[in-house]
Amino acid sequence: MLKYQAPQQDMEFLLFDLFQVNREWAEAPAFADLDADLARAVLSEAGKLASAVMAPVNQEGDRVGCRWSDGVVEAPAAFKPAYRQLAEGGWLGLSGSPAHGGQGMPKLLGCLVEEMFWGANTGLYLYGTLSVGAAICIEAHGSDAQKRLYLPKLYSGEWSAAMDLTEPQAGTDLGLLRTRAAPADDGTYRISGSKIFITSGEHDLSQNIVHLVIARVEGAPKGTGGISLFIVPKFIPDENGLPGVRNGVASGAIEHKMGVGGSATNLMNYEDAVGYRVGEENAGLACMFTMMNHERLAVGLQGLGAGELAYQQAAEYAKERLQGRAPGGPQNPDAEADPLLVHPDVRRMLLTIRAYTEGGRAFAMLVGRSLDRAKHSGDPYSQALADLLTPIAKAYLSDRGFESAVLAQQVFGGHGYIKEWGMEQIVRDVRIAPIYEGANGVQALDLIGRKVLRDGGGALRRFVAEMAADEVPKEYGEPLRSAFDRLLGVTDWLVAKAPEDPNLPGAASTDYLELAGLTIYAWLWARMAAAAPDDAFGQAKRRTARFFFQKLLPKAEALTSSIRAGAGAVMDMPEQAF
Amino acid sequence: MLKYQAPQQDMEFLLFDLFQVNREWAEAPAFADLDADLARAVLSEAGKLASAVMAPVNQEGDRVGCRWSDGVVEAPAAFKPAYRQLAEGGWLGLSGSPAHGGQGMPKLLGCLVEEMFWGANTGLYLYGTLSVGAAICIEAHGSDAQKRLYLPKLYSGEWSAAMDLTEPQAGTDLGLLRTRAAPADDGTYRISGSKIFITSGEHDLSQNIVHLVIARVEGAPKGTGGISLFIVPKFIPDENGLPGVRNGVASGAIEHKMGVGGSATNLMNYEDAVGYRVGEENAGLACMFTMMNHERLAVGLQGLGAGELAYQQAAEYAKERLQGRAPGGPQNPDAEADPLLVHPDVRRMLLTIRAYTEGGRAFAMLVGRSLDRAKHSGDPYSQALADLLTPIAKAYLSDRGFESAVLAQQVFGGHGYIKEWGMEQIVRDVRIAPIYEGANGVQALDLIGRKVLRDGGGALRRFVAEMAADEVPKEYGEPLRSAFDRLLGVTDWLVAKAPEDPNLPGAASTDYLELAGLTIYAWLWARMAAAAPDDAFGQAKRRTARFFFQKLLPKAEALTSSIRAGAGAVMDMPEQAF
Repeated sequence: MLKYQAPQQDMEFLLFDLFQVNREWAEAPAFADLDADLARAVLSEAGKLASAVMAPVNQEGDRVGCRWSDGVVEAPAAFKPAYRQLAEGGWLGLSGSPAHGGQGMPKLLGCLVEEMFWGANTGLYLYGTLSVGAAICIEAHGSDAQKRLYLPKLYSGEWSAAMDLTEPQAGTDLGLLRTRAAPADDGTYRISGSKIFITSGEHDLSQNIVHLVIARVEGAPKGTGGISLFIVPKFIPDENGLPGVRNGVASGAIEHKMGVGGSATNLMNYEDAVGYRVGEENAGLACMFTMMNHERLAVGLQGLGAGELAYQQAAEYAKERLQGRAPGGPQNPDAEADPLLVHPDVRRMLLTIRAYTEGGRAFAMLVGRSLDRAKHSGDPYSQALADLLTPIAKAYLSDRGFESAVLAQQVFGGHGYIKEWGMEQIVRDVRIAPIYEGANGVQALDLIGRKVLRDGGGALRRFVAEMAADEVPKEYGEPLRSAFDRLLGVTDWLVAKAPEDPNLPGAASTDYLELAGLTIYAWLWARMAAAAPDDAFGQAKRRTARFFFQKLLPKAEALTSSIRAGAGAVMDMPEQAF
Repeated sequence: MLKYQAPQQDMEFLLFDLFQVNREWAEAPAFADLDADLARAVLSEAGKLASAVMAPVNQEGDRVGCRWSDGVVEAPAAFKPAYRQLAEGGWLGLSGSPAHGGQGMPKLLGCLVEEMFWGANTGLYLYGTLSVGAAICIEAHGSDAQKRLYLPKLYSGEWSAAMDLTEPQAGTDLGLLRTRAAPADDGTYRISGSKIFITSGEHDLSQNIVHLVIARVEGAPKGTGGISLFIVPKFIPDENGLPGVRNGVASGAIEHKMGVGGSATNLMNYEDAVGYRVGEENAGLACMFTMMNHERLAVGLQGLGAGELAYQQAAEYAKERLQGRAPGGPQNPDAEADPLLVHPDVRRMLLTIRAYTEGGRAFAMLVGRSLDRAKHSGDPYSQALADLLTPIAKAYLSDRGFESAVLAQQVFGGHGYIKEWGMEQIVRDVRIAPIYEGANGVQALDLIGRKVLRDGGGALRRFVAEMAADEVPKEYGEPLRSAFDRLLGVTDWLVAKAPEDPNLPGAASTDYLELAGLTIYAWLWARMAAAAPDDAFGQAKRRTARFFFQKLLPKAEALTSSIRAGAGAVMDMPEQAF
């Protein structure tokens, strides 16, 4: 019953009216072949795949789940044809390197396509997103031979990938990992150990599985400075680049989870598995971060897709379900009752989802644009901006996606709690987004520590100055200036106080990330209101902007008070009192 | 793996230090036999039942679920001995009428016991709470014969009860119900129709099931003024008051739900079922509300119990799980890593749960005390206060319970998402609490419409004046005064503006309920800080109070801004734009 329709009109508005990509692309040699018609066609084809192929098997994937038997993992049967179409359409190589069979499309556009796939079928797209991320990692850090061998297979989806990081004792703290890599005489390594929570680590949708595994070479330093990265293929490629002999890597079990039941989450065992090093020894964590940063933005897009999917169901239900009467008198006097949509509180829930989803879409594209600019112009500020925005994208979009799914479920009342309508599945599926790829608390620490305090707030201040230079509709000028001042004031205060109190950044981190997210969304909403056309679509955009400013932005005040309370409120409680 | 320990120390603190029940009970003839030792013993015995009998079968109940076959519903087998002990211990009659076999204990105390049962095993206690509520309804509105027949059986748990309200087209809007009641010659009625979402409507834990069914007598007025209430027993009691012939009421199916899998949620069909009217014809909704108000407070207690259960797991995990290092340097230098608890953001999550849970416990007892005073003194203000606080208890406690469960799950990282640890079950189970018994949006409308605007804010103002008259520690004097002023200011504004704009109350309702909840919790936290003893327990209480004031109360500012934005932000969007 979960239906998904790609929000093409909104996506085109963002591309052409808000971000004015025509100008940007015309000036970029990498995008010389790209124009508006091609971008529209890409969105339209991706939207068809999402709505007609991926979405119809979303609930079945959850119901059937994955099956493990003696190391063999079966994905839901209904996923197989859908995965094949996702792969054969070239969608996993959309932003991939043209030199190796990728489409070379901008990430800005790729974000929109990814959002559709997440929204249509999260469990299924999890098999795809790791291939995209692994390809980015290999493209950035692999040898030429590795690129030639792996990239075309990952772009085409014939092979898929997994990111093998977590161990039972090493989750957030990867420095604790124990998986070992022993150098062999031929320049390869032998990997031994176990990993847990490995998404797509084993399954039957692709011919081969390319594990990117972090491990410690014998004698490596302790901690994160002793981590190396390896490609560990399920089947070792033969001289023709085809899956050859089975490698010593196998699934020991799959997890039973709250959601994304169609996605196989594996316990992986490595027994003298052949591994091919990527990058230098002991420099593996930085290489892995190339993939992780992709996946962090991807997880934000997962939240966004879930929010959009949830909104579509809830809006339709609110228009069709007749219950109660409008506060001002019957709107539907010939029927027994009015639609739910007459109730202001139902509208509040729907508009909240919409303000977060449409704002989040613009935000994700902003990150995509920074990545495009960094990649194609080498501009260090664009990279710094992408680095600054990535933890916000991961955490703020995934938290808002979860919040949106819960609100949409609430619109359905009791029907939202039973499995039939699918709303509870959206909640269960998206709940993983704030947890994996670095829990949102870790994103908040990354933002405040590495991305803000480390450069004294420099990149943030430059970004705020850029935002503040934009023209916005008059009614948002003053609230937006206040929002910028608030964020800058809190940042200055943290920069000044943090050296005195090592616990302050952590105590402020989650509130600070939310404050940054709210502030950037406010700017995007003001800009969207300015760019909105003079028609029904544009009117709705402007009204959602007003809703955001009046009903959601005020939380910034509360976050600021909470941050300025300092670390005492959380640190004074003695350990034994918990 | 979910373990539950009743928070007896905190409960005793609230009873004897905060609410000083010794004095209250000594002055009340109804509680003449009750003293502190007896109250402690009640808590201790209930706590043992919760931790040793109910909690151990919590995860199994979810895993096994209920089975429907040809109208017969099997509850999880592991629930049977646990239900028997719950019933045989007399717990379902704890606050019941002594004239009919109840224990006559104050609701204030009963709230604590109920919280334990919800926390230990929500799916199981759902079979109990409806019996308690049905008994209250029959005690208030039933005939003497009905009381004599049903109350002892419900108090003893030999028979259980169900509340049969919802129909496919009539959820929140009960006026749309279609179930019919035809008068028979003998003064009974014949009930025909169907109901959905009937918790405990059919199962095999009790000898008989007492359905309280609302239906429309032939020729009754349309809408809620034409609703009558009936007792429809599964087995018609014979002349000895024992289950006799099977009545025409049967389960047509059970629902597959997000959570509370051990609780049977039934589609009920009535085919000329014999019904015994409770109260007058066409006055059934008011009678039913006696039960609903009990269940609304009970659902708040469900949220509270879930928050406590979630906290206990997360606090233990945060103390045991070693991951990363404290921001100020290793706290645990001999081990590979420090416990999670050294991280300020983990403490923030735990303290947030704790501030809501301990504050919520005090709040629930406040509602219980108002109900006790209303019942035993007939004081109209106590009843008005209970009426005012009930929607807040239902919605604010259940929302905070859900939020707490999600935060606790987050502390566990990936381990929170897999079924093994049980954290995801807490989230799934408590998610129903904001939905059923009147969705939280309906509670918010009830609060702002019926409980505040209808009397021009009178009861609320009197309650705020009472709170403001209390002595609190100096540091909380000013913030508390601001909080009261803010709530009163917003209330005055709504009272003045609502007549001009019928959509204003609905547009403000959810924010207003949250603002009221935060403000009352602030007062309770200040009072708890004042009453806290001078020991480690008291120190922790005072520090949690400070956390509440510094980190959570600031949200009141944001809620106030959002309310004062008015209804335009939600109502201006045209229907077709959704």
